[in-house]
Amino acid sequence: MSAQPEAERRWLRAAALIGLGVENVDTPALVIDLDAMERNLDRIAAFASARALRLRPHAKTHKSAELAQAQMARGAVGVCVQKIDEALALARAGVADIFISNEVIDPAKLRRLSEALRTLPTRFAIAVDSALGLERLAQALLEAGVTTPLSIDVFIEIDVGQGRCGLPPGAPAVALAQRLLTQPALRFAGLQAYHGGAQHLRSANERTGALHASAQAVRQTLDALAQAGISTPLVTGAGSGTFSIEAASGLWGELQCGSYLFMDADYAQNQTDPGAPEFEHALFIKAQVMSRGQDHAVIDAGHKSHALDSGPPAVAWPHDLAWANGGDEHGLLSAATPRARLPALGETVWLIPGHCDPTVNLHDFYVGLRGGLQEGRVERLIRIDARGALG
Amino acid sequence: MSAQPEAERRWLRAAALIGLGVENVDTPALVIDLDAMERNLDRIAAFASARALRLRPHAKTHKSAELAQAQMARGAVGVCVQKIDEALALARAGVADIFISNEVIDPAKLRRLSEALRTLPTRFAIAVDSALGLERLAQALLEAGVTTPLSIDVFIEIDVGQGRCGLPPGAPAVALAQRLLTQPALRFAGLQAYHGGAQHLRSANERTGALHASAQAVRQTLDALAQAGISTPLVTGAGSGTFSIEAASGLWGELQCGSYLFMDADYAQNQTDPGAPEFEHALFIKAQVMSRGQDHAVIDAGHKSHALDSGPPAVAWPHDLAWANGGDEHGLLSAATPRARLPALGETVWLIPGHCDPTVNLHDFYVGLRGGLQEGRVERLIRIDARGALG
Repeated sequence: MSAQPEAERRWLRAAALIGLGVENVDTPALVIDLDAMERNLDRIAAFASARALRLRPHAKTHKSAELAQAQMARGAVGVCVQKIDEALALARAGVADIFISNEVIDPAKLRRLSEALRTLPTRFAIAVDSALGLERLAQALLEAGVTTPLSIDVFIEIDVGQGRCGLPPGAPAVALAQRLLTQPALRFAGLQAYHGGAQHLRSANERTGALHASAQAVRQTLDALAQAGISTPLVTGAGSGTFSIEAASGLWGELQCGSYLFMDADYAQNQTDPGAPEFEHALFIKAQVMSRGQDHAVIDAGHKSHALDSGPPAVAWPHDLAWANGGDEHGLLSAATPRARLPALGETVWLIPGHCDPTVNLHDFYVGLRGGLQEGRVERLIRIDARGALG
Repeated sequence: MSAQPEAERRWLRAAALIGLGVENVDTPALVIDLDAMERNLDRIAAFASARALRLRPHAKTHKSAELAQAQMARGAVGVCVQKIDEALALARAGVADIFISNEVIDPAKLRRLSEALRTLPTRFAIAVDSALGLERLAQALLEAGVTTPLSIDVFIEIDVGQGRCGLPPGAPAVALAQRLLTQPALRFAGLQAYHGGAQHLRSANERTGALHASAQAVRQTLDALAQAGISTPLVTGAGSGTFSIEAASGLWGELQCGSYLFMDADYAQNQTDPGAPEFEHALFIKAQVMSRGQDHAVIDAGHKSHALDSGPPAVAWPHDLAWANGGDEHGLLSAATPRARLPALGETVWLIPGHCDPTVNLHDFYVGLRGGLQEGRVERLIRIDARGALG
């Protein structure tokens, strides 16, 4: 018996709608406006290409091999993920180049990665920020019989302001790089330098200030590595809130933005950086009204269908409605302006998720819509291969 | 190809650990302390049985046919769910009696329910709060050829203070009951009366005050129905925060508590009602430290493995640590007291989820542990059949 027979049933039910109008899509559903998404794909590709920067979008946003391939078809060198199991899910679905931009300490997980290195054609990279992590990685490769020189790219993560993972800039990174260079199966690929917290600072000035400090940390580390005779092939990082700043710095050679693909209600509150392309909302929750009060409508989508960690969803349609949290399975809509019309029982409501990445993780597939939310048709389903790949 | 081949792989990987010690469980993992859970099952069963009340636990908490069966084996008459697809997932996995304690307006969903009524041995019930919902339900049954009298139990939901779904108490419920009684395939089963908001009021006094108003709304509706010559077989409702109040009212005949099974960090902040049993935490996230700073430890579990909608998780082990949000895949731990010891790289950390229901929805299965978090062994995996059943 399959682990998720019901997910399979839902997939088959939705697949039966391919070619039919959007009104047939069951609610709540995670829907991509394919036209908008493809424009976002083109805009980031043009941005990176015009600056001769590598683009390695973060697949933690979409968790889908098909969308990773769409990014690589437009010039991305590969994708990032956060977890070994995400990497394996995408690799097994055919993605050729995957960077686990995060630390892994658990020997069992490193064994899974080593086994994949031995058996899959995928090119893998990983981040480290400790001697223990480095030793365990080398040991796992050895035990799996992966002894080819430079079998895996290893990036040293430095903390550039987020206060989460990463070594302090400068000397600690040099010490770890020196250890790394003694491991023949590992290739020192450069620095992982990402400031997650800066992505959501609202003003362009605030983000520029935060990234100025990040750039100083990167420069200090590059200088210290150079003084130790170590050349750093690449600095990788940046997110959808700040990438134009990293791109202009001359330090980062690779951009990891992911959310640009879909945008979300949180990112939409950012003031766009000068020179950065504008992205469109391309990810929506289709919901419907399932109960009506005098002054409110209740929809059948709650936070089991869209994440709330970065703030509320926006109501894309109908206009002029305010959203309130109705729990796991409900959302509450009320009039936000005098001209608002509350939707009737059964009417469709479109939400823009507050945060796209964890919203995607709540679903098994996307419904890909061609021709817009109101008149579109279901073109295809897109599998969320790494949904629930936590390990 | 299956919709979720990776979920299947993770299941098989975890199943290989049955009989082995907890230290082998991959992180992050959703772990049940089976001993604690079984004590919770026994306590609620004893409470209901001593008062001759029906118990119909809400399966929106656990989403699992196996756990529904465990509740029914201890005397529960069936379970509640919120969605048609949850009902179908549990029914297809063998649960015999399921109440969809929520409104469904969508004809396509009602067709799915009607088809299940025609083909499965399960006894179903559903809530309504509108004439349209009632008509569509009757129509769907008719179209599916379900014409046996009293094929499905229908509860009329009244709003007893939450301000979400449900008719106003009194006359509107009478009008809907009169319509219901004209539909031969539908059985008027009583009133759905649940005050979700009251569950999380912290003091017993506040909850008693809120439920006093709920009881008045129920009594007013029962009286209005009686005056119209309609007898009401049952009032169903109550949650893990208030059930002893509903139980003492003499109005509710059936209790729907669900969270008692696992408890969570949010419910733990409630002062227990006099006379109510104390429940234990039985649901945990096993995580591990994957990066260390001078004054903080980073664990490999973020809000992709435990929900944050009702507040932060508690750190069950090690003691004296404060948790901060590190994003989708990370949690940040720091010293909360002078005697705190920050865990080292690779060390295990146990979290108590802030809110159990949506946390469960992030996982495909539970790891059932016998013998406690520190020394226990994996006894079995428990499938989360209705994970992602949103429709």
